Amino acid sequence: MTSKLLERRHRLLGQHAPLFYDQPLEIVAGEGLWLTAADGTRYLDVYNNVPSCGHCHPRIVDALAGQAAKLNVHTRYLHQTILNYVERLTGLFDDTLNMAMLTCSGSEANELALRIARHTTGNQGVIVTDYAYHGNTEAVAELGTGFMPEADGCQRVVGVPAPDAYRLPPGIAAEDAEDFYVRQVELAVETLQARGVGVAGILVCPAFANEGLLNPPNGFLDRAVSVVRRAGGLYIADEVQGGFGRTGHHWWSHQRFAAVPDLVTLGKPMGNGHPLAGVVVPRHLGEPFCEAAMYFNTFAGNPVSCAVGMAVLDVIEDEALMANAVATGDYVKAGLDALAEVSASIGDVRQKGLFFAVELVTDQERKTPDAALTRRVVNQLKANGVLISSIGKHNNVLKMRPPLPFAREHADILLDALGGALKAPKQNAVGGG
Amino acid sequence: MTSKLLERRHRLLGQHAPLFYDQPLEIVAGEGLWLTAADGTRYLDVYNNVPSCGHCHPRIVDALAGQAAKLNVHTRYLHQTILNYVERLTGLFDDTLNMAMLTCSGSEANELALRIARHTTGNQGVIVTDYAYHGNTEAVAELGTGFMPEADGCQRVVGVPAPDAYRLPPGIAAEDAEDFYVRQVELAVETLQARGVGVAGILVCPAFANEGLLNPPNGFLDRAVSVVRRAGGLYIADEVQGGFGRTGHHWWSHQRFAAVPDLVTLGKPMGNGHPLAGVVVPRHLGEPFCEAAMYFNTFAGNPVSCAVGMAVLDVIEDEALMANAVATGDYVKAGLDALAEVSASIGDVRQKGLFFAVELVTDQERKTPDAALTRRVVNQLKANGVLISSIGKHNNVLKMRPPLPFAREHADILLDALGGALKAPKQNAVGGG
Repeated sequence: MTSKLLERRHRLLGQHAPLFYDQPLEIVAGEGLWLTAADGTRYLDVYNNVPSCGHCHPRIVDALAGQAAKLNVHTRYLHQTILNYVERLTGLFDDTLNMAMLTCSGSEANELALRIARHTTGNQGVIVTDYAYHGNTEAVAELGTGFMPEADGCQRVVGVPAPDAYRLPPGIAAEDAEDFYVRQVELAVETLQARGVGVAGILVCPAFANEGLLNPPNGFLDRAVSVVRRAGGLYIADEVQGGFGRTGHHWWSHQRFAAVPDLVTLGKPMGNGHPLAGVVVPRHLGEPFCEAAMYFNTFAGNPVSCAVGMAVLDVIEDEALMANAVATGDYVKAGLDALAEVSASIGDVRQKGLFFAVELVTDQERKTPDAALTRRVVNQLKANGVLISSIGKHNNVLKMRPPLPFAREHADILLDALGGALKAPKQNAVGGG
Repeated sequence: MTSKLLERRHRLLGQHAPLFYDQPLEIVAGEGLWLTAADGTRYLDVYNNVPSCGHCHPRIVDALAGQAAKLNVHTRYLHQTILNYVERLTGLFDDTLNMAMLTCSGSEANELALRIARHTTGNQGVIVTDYAYHGNTEAVAELGTGFMPEADGCQRVVGVPAPDAYRLPPGIAAEDAEDFYVRQVELAVETLQARGVGVAGILVCPAFANEGLLNPPNGFLDRAVSVVRRAGGLYIADEVQGGFGRTGHHWWSHQRFAAVPDLVTLGKPMGNGHPLAGVVVPRHLGEPFCEAAMYFNTFAGNPVSCAVGMAVLDVIEDEALMANAVATGDYVKAGLDALAEVSASIGDVRQKGLFFAVELVTDQERKTPDAALTRRVVNQLKANGVLISSIGKHNNVLKMRPPLPFAREHADILLDALGGALKAPKQNAVGGG
């Protein structure tokens, strides 16, 4: 069955459309933390942050279905729901971030933020961290330094090393790391200025999620933002992965730091799977851009999307999902730390709320990435009914990012399975290498 | 009430977020061809082509709600629904267009088509018709020659005059118009080659919708495509407005012409309001791009979107909406032609299925555009319970594009209201000038 589906998929969607796992899964149903495959097997979902309130949350499905039966039309007519939603959404940010422009995807949100930043500053240059991913359109693909074709040779984007307090640059001591990483941003500014494109801004995910959920040296981000602002650029925080309570203590991952972004982009969990995303922007930046560009987005901000977005905020608040992200997140972190005590393969454990990265290495001292083990562990966990994935420049970081109702009972299943997979002899691994 | 809503909207979404009508409407419900405002007034919708199967179509709402309650997850797992949908969708195209990549919006679809065309050809240059609109991302905004900031001075995009058999270029006779417009495409090719960017393709809406639903000289498009192909470029047909049976005789507006596109982009009516769009592409172009770019779109192609897309195709076929587009379309066209007989203001009437353009002029001979009358008519029709809009470079073209279940009873309401508005003395017009 799966092989016939795969053949059809290769024919209709292409052989390179990304799929998870050495033996792909056909998923047919979802509920809360659980996904059910076509063969009836149930899987604990420790990967998906789009259905952040849980798969098929009844309250969100009801909001979707109810509004879709009543009215679904664009924003060239007035409608209360979009205003109620944007008022509530912007209320979750610093007072300066007081206007929102809705889009259908995180890619569209980052596109829009770049257009606003370039329009506002009159500059073209953008600074990003290497190996981050910000979306699939051309201008956003240019930001994918290190792996996206459009980034290769792009003169208006400069990548800096992702600020990593675990895997330091060669020859740099821990106490010098912050200065080193900030210096790379200064050099990027100089490069953009030398190329004559100026500095439109720095665009980063403040959780440094795709780079491996890195912990930057403490003062890095605030100092980097200062460097960029002195050069006339803006600070764009990509909260597509780190937003909507994922990191537990804050609604937005940038709130761990002092710097308040000039633009914030939102996406993935915003509609619990419904295509909903957007940019939060100070009015004094949004208005001049909108006047010049006549920005309009046919689907975005329709009453159905906004009803869904509102239900997502209701669920996060009413079910205390951020408090759960802290409590269960800390519980999982303690369990991962305990595993690290007994496993020579775990080089580093990083956590932000219900977002975990476990770096696998062949030796603790040289920190040599172990991509082969990472792949084996991911597939072994799947064989044991637990879905996770991997990330990072070296693809040696286990990525765990479950829906936010993840409870201790789920955490215990994850920790047991992970402990087992790390202990398993290689020859027993499923779908290895 | 409306003024309070407007104040909130200006504060939360900005003053420049586009709104219809001199006195904006607050719409609270939709059903079939009818929209209901907050004050209870019902309006006949002769504008919206996104809810192309009719507002809140019960069969489509059921498909949305049913799948949303069962599973909504990305395409990195296998799922039958996306394959069933893409198989059916590609079956509606020429055999060469045998693979599809789904997106969330027409902007994302045009972005993707441009990325594929540039990757495939190794060239950057794109030819478009002036005053067309293809979306809101940066690379797509560059295509908005004549009005978008990013298009201004863009070296890799060249606009050609939209091929207009009514409003001919100065000094060009009707029998020479085709040669003239084709020659502009040849000159655009030469310009791009002289700039060293080469020709990646020509991107046009084959219905020439935003340009004013123009009727091009008969052989123009096929000859233009040949010119571009000889220069190594591809033909990208933007079917975001003209697709899904809108033009009646064909599923896709490019099928009026002989040339088969290399890439087709889809959007607006594809999900009847749900954010669903995509690119249909020959496998031999799609596969190399996907391999190089690792294209992935988090929300696109999820089971909910595909269930909705399938329901839209079901409704178009089961309710014979294309046959209705021909029958009612021709009926409306005859009525508009009759109005033109008695109204000195109607310069030209153009129709493609259930898509109508009525060009308003101050004098028939010089064809001077009458944007003021156009605006008065649009607002007068609204005051009489009929929703239409305007388009075109001179904003003097009435744009009428109702949901496809538009029947004779609706056509009669439209024709009566339009006849009345064209006869109304200026001082009686509502919200004029």
